[in-house]
Amino acid sequence: MTYDLWYWDGIPGRGEFVRLALEAGGIPYRECARQPGADEGALVADLSSARKHPPFAPPYLVAGKMTLAQTANILLFLGEKHGLAPDSLEGRLWVNQLQLTIADVVAEAHDTHHPISASEYYEDQKVEAARRARCFREERMPKFLGYFERVLEGPQAWLAGGKRWTYVDLSLFHLVDGLLYAFPKRMATLAVHYPKVMALHARVAALAELQPYFESGRRLPFGEGIFRQYRELDAA
Amino acid sequence: MTYDLWYWDGIPGRGEFVRLALEAGGIPYRECARQPGADEGALVADLSSARKHPPFAPPYLVAGKMTLAQTANILLFLGEKHGLAPDSLEGRLWVNQLQLTIADVVAEAHDTHHPISASEYYEDQKVEAARRARCFREERMPKFLGYFERVLEGPQAWLAGGKRWTYVDLSLFHLVDGLLYAFPKRMATLAVHYPKVMALHARVAALAELQPYFESGRRLPFGEGIFRQYRELDAA
Repeated sequence: MTYDLWYWDGIPGRGEFVRLALEAGGIPYRECARQPGADEGALVADLSSARKHPPFAPPYLVAGKMTLAQTANILLFLGEKHGLAPDSLEGRLWVNQLQLTIADVVAEAHDTHHPISASEYYEDQKVEAARRARCFREERMPKFLGYFERVLEGPQAWLAGGKRWTYVDLSLFHLVDGLLYAFPKRMATLAVHYPKVMALHARVAALAELQPYFESGRRLPFGEGIFRQYRELDAA
Repeated sequence: MTYDLWYWDGIPGRGEFVRLALEAGGIPYRECARQPGADEGALVADLSSARKHPPFAPPYLVAGKMTLAQTANILLFLGEKHGLAPDSLEGRLWVNQLQLTIADVVAEAHDTHHPISASEYYEDQKVEAARRARCFREERMPKFLGYFERVLEGPQAWLAGGKRWTYVDLSLFHLVDGLLYAFPKRMATLAVHYPKVMALHARVAALAELQPYFESGRRLPFGEGIFRQYRELDAA
């Protein structure tokens, strides 16, 4: 079965966490909003179409008769079905727990540039963004990165502890990638304190399973999504 | 087995979503931070203790050798193990998806009073809070409530569509309860547009399974947690 993945075109966004799992798992999927003739209107129309289980927002995955939304929920499904998560219930719940913690960081990273409203311009909330970004850089980034560093057992470890990566390793890679893009100065200061997290980032970047994707041009660069490069929001 | 639930004492907080499932399911648990002699220090000490799977933050549930954190993840476990979710994989993923959407609303509701930083005083971010709360009241509340209204098939329906409530019905009840507390004027305006959501709120409030809990005094009132009653953040 080829899955249908629906997400806004033009940004990696939350869809990228799902894409990385699909790509690394060698799972066939269609990127619906990037099909010939599709545009933002196609997604809006599909999102509001009648469904047994309507999504609140993209990303969502259509798997035969099922429609699944919420990034962590889609990954929970893919992880179990395609062997991208541990076999045991305990292991799967642990990976889900870590994924939800990553989702929390992602939401906070987004709010550094949109602390008042996602539907207002950045320019209209720049002052508040500067304050929120400072708290995120100084308090939240070390706290979250320190947590993942504590979870990793060694420089060659995966988050779930087994011999093979699981989907949450791909997600931590993408999170770190986003932080490196949005907060390069801050990450230059912090990275040395989280060697296991940075080693995991490098190992996922080098995974043989992901090279075809990275070389394909399908992986969109960061830009106007969750992770944005506003120099005034970054500092060492 | 009696579960150990760890959460900050004094507020319902995110712990309340777990508590409602445990109570309605008749599942034995200990509220660890409220045991005689326990205080905030006990939770901090337990949270930082060595564990195979450390939580990032409360609430977390100790189930024998397993420790589970992240509200939606704990509920996923309890739902499957204790029959508080649909039997089918599709049904369980749907309930998880809705729970994660509720978690998104909860995070946004919290940020109405702490849009800059959770570790700074409300008084030091009142101006920003007023702006964020207005966006939440005017855009986000109707959007989220409208979504749940659309999901519910009728005035007697549960979110997962079966004949019995699932844990996400309890969670939507608590979310609406929190919104009624924090935004009474706004909810007075909105409620009439979401009759199925409000009917579900009333039906959960009347569930026989929950009456012993409601009457016990164990259910803490809202106060200094996620849902707060700052009159200046509410408006019709």
